[in-house]
Amino acid sequence: MSYTTLSYEVSEHILTLTLNRPDALNSFTVTMANELVDAFGRASEDDDVRAIVVTGAGKAFCAGMDLSVPGNVFGLDESLQPSLDDMHTGLDDPAIFDGVRDTGGRVTLAIYDCKKPVIGAINGAAVGIGATMTLAMDIRLASEKARIGFVFGKIGVVPEACSSWFLPRIVGIQQALEWVYTGDILNAEQALAGKLVRSVHAPDELLPAALELARKFSQHKSPVAVAFARQMMYRNAAQPHPIEAHRVDSLAMFYTSLEDGKEGVRSFLEKREPAYTSRASKMPAFYPWWK
Amino acid sequence: MSYTTLSYEVSEHILTLTLNRPDALNSFTVTMANELVDAFGRASEDDDVRAIVVTGAGKAFCAGMDLSVPGNVFGLDESLQPSLDDMHTGLDDPAIFDGVRDTGGRVTLAIYDCKKPVIGAINGAAVGIGATMTLAMDIRLASEKARIGFVFGKIGVVPEACSSWFLPRIVGIQQALEWVYTGDILNAEQALAGKLVRSVHAPDELLPAALELARKFSQHKSPVAVAFARQMMYRNAAQPHPIEAHRVDSLAMFYTSLEDGKEGVRSFLEKREPAYTSRASKMPAFYPWWK
Amino acid sequence: MSYTTLSYEVSEHILTLTLNRPDALNSFTVTMANELVDAFGRASEDDDVRAIVVTGAGKAFCAGMDLSVPGNVFGLDESLQPSLDDMHTGLDDPAIFDGVRDTGGRVTLAIYDCKKPVIGAINGAAVGIGATMTLAMDIRLASEKARIGFVFGKIGVVPEACSSWFLPRIVGIQQALEWVYTGDILNAEQALAGKLVRSVHAPDELLPAALELARKFSQHKSPVAVAFARQMMYRNAAQPHPIEAHRVDSLAMFYTSLEDGKEGVRSFLEKREPAYTSRASKMPAFYPWWK
Repeated sequence: MSYTTLSYEVSEHILTLTLNRPDALNSFTVTMANELVDAFGRASEDDDVRAIVVTGAGKAFCAGMDLSVPGNVFGLDESLQPSLDDMHTGLDDPAIFDGVRDTGGRVTLAIYDCKKPVIGAINGAAVGIGATMTLAMDIRLASEKARIGFVFGKIGVVPEACSSWFLPRIVGIQQALEWVYTGDILNAEQALAGKLVRSVHAPDELLPAALELARKFSQHKSPVAVAFARQMMYRNAAQPHPIEAHRVDSLAMFYTSLEDGKEGVRSFLEKREPAYTSRASKMPAFYPWWK
Repeated sequence: MSYTTLSYEVSEHILTLTLNRPDALNSFTVTMANELVDAFGRASEDDDVRAIVVTGAGKAFCAGMDLSVPGNVFGLDESLQPSLDDMHTGLDDPAIFDGVRDTGGRVTLAIYDCKKPVIGAINGAAVGIGATMTLAMDIRLASEKARIGFVFGKIGVVPEACSSWFLPRIVGIQQALEWVYTGDILNAEQALAGKLVRSVHAPDELLPAALELARKFSQHKSPVAVAFARQMMYRNAAQPHPIEAHRVDSLAMFYTSLEDGKEGVRSFLEKREPAYTSRASKMPAFYPWWK
Repeated sequence: MSYTTLSYEVSEHILTLTLNRPDALNSFTVTMANELVDAFGRASEDDDVRAIVVTGAGKAFCAGMDLSVPGNVFGLDESLQPSLDDMHTGLDDPAIFDGVRDTGGRVTLAIYDCKKPVIGAINGAAVGIGATMTLAMDIRLASEKARIGFVFGKIGVVPEACSSWFLPRIVGIQQALEWVYTGDILNAEQALAGKLVRSVHAPDELLPAALELARKFSQHKSPVAVAFARQMMYRNAAQPHPIEAHRVDSLAMFYTSLEDGKEGVRSFLEKREPAYTSRASKMPAFYPWWK
């Protein structure tokens, strides 16, 4: 699949996924949503990809929904009367899938399911879905020129893309509510002070810093262990009791110990770098445990 | 309804709710609990109210349970043997409602259900229930004179008002446990360092700052979108999987896009302030989705 | 029971539990796991113990799994094919208990169930299970010489001991993921900056500071109220709705008010220290409410 709104480049096992509509400030369209869902699913299963960096071409990261394209927000079929039941049983019904389901949420759910670490390199404006899509990424780095806004309240709609699930986990409920209520545009320092981004960089140093982090996350790391760790951190933490983590930990530790763990300990004892052979495309049988 | 322990004043669509027993340091009584539950329910449905600021009259915010009033803590009927079953099936049974249910929790649950942003302006002592009631408010601002204490452990009882649900969400589990174990009284700087309060102000500047924030939360904002955002942020974040947020996001985005969202985008494109017409007293049919 | 890997000393109602294999840098073995489970269960029911401090003998806190002992990681029975079903129904089956269940998780679950505040005094290297076991402790203090590493990814295995449940609650999901992905060893200042530890101390001042905090948590505090508070803070916060906290709060407040709460309020009004008589070994009948 070739993409019209993205560039997808793999080098040294790191996928750089670039939102690539610079003339439109990489604003978000249904096509971009579909391509992002495809790209994260593809990268998740591609053993050549071990970490992912997401950034934007040109000045912006993503300036939000492209309001010039009919159908992005406005093409709603007003005769539809979707209910919560539909959202439980009809998510794949074309009328619901195309007419009701939040496109941003389809993207963040694809990121959530991904087996590879995901780093957001916010190079400029990240507004609306441009801001909320980064919340499903594991780590956010910002350029000094980043401008981030959860602006939904300003245009009379609600925060989306599962941001109500992700944002309080990242910055706490108090900070999350203030940003959502005001819809203010945050500069990089404000985003750092609120712990939304992990670090701030000069514009030229942003992508190198993100790639360096991606290398740390992937070089000499077991692809299967990393995939497990990512899914365990998000999913286990949301369970009502740590025993649920224990069930998964025990199985994941058992299987990884029999696989890359042997080489891991051997290399540690031999004071050399490990050479892992596991592949994230082939997880142990109990993965995905939540099905 | 007129209140004996509160003042309820609406101006510029902002309700200032003042705990108003200054001679008793606004200490908490069953009457105050009932009036607070009524006031939050009333404000939630009153379209003239778009944001709420809670503060205390005189020197204190709320000095805790009024220990001089029999029945607040002590009037328990020792012959009752309430069980967890009662708390699941008999919450409205008069013996349980009046004799067992934590009055502070009845207040924080009413705040939790409110459709309007709630800002706590902690002007002085906020101790016991005076501290825990603020945890259900979205944002806390403190005067330099604020003194905040989760003092339950000092008097041999447990933290209440659902504070075990709220406090770790606001300050993290490590900080929450230390404050609860020690029962220490925190000054404003300590509360700020621990991220319990969002900002500290000179005494004269506290209420103006809270009102300014309330205006930012409500002016040129869609009442329905704000009500959704508030409930989504608390409820979706507590779900075990982001798909639950996605279900609600999708419906809320669909309905708000057809309502104030049209004006929101139009005003944005026309570079003018929006004029929203939705009313929080009339939510789309799928609200409350959790029933 | 006497321990071969631990020292267990109670003084002034504070248990100092010392990982005591200094020649092996207190590295973790199955014996140590079993002894820790026993020690936390015993301290939980011993009314002479009102708070617990955990530290390491000699230079290290705990240098991780003892890789020199067969059976710690490597003695896995490769013929076993454990499934998630086994982890739900067969946790006590010897083949699962001894062959599959994560030993670190057995320890952190025992800490989780403990009725006494638990303080980790991290005096030196705390690596692997040496790091993750501290996450189930309520408060972490670090020596300037502490070195903390979630190093699992470096040896090809997954984070364990329910750390995916605890770590995001303590430091947020973004920081948690970065530490897990890199496997970097953190010094004390980094751990403090990331809010993993609550404070950093000169080596000689670490244990005194931990003991002072333990005294604050236990002196003139109600043992039953403290036990409730600990379990409420962890368990209620993980529920999907604050009403679940309200059910427990109401019962716990009812019973503690009739017990140590009477003395608590009386002593407060009489401006003297309280003399509580409740015992954590005898909790009200609805405890444990989660059974």
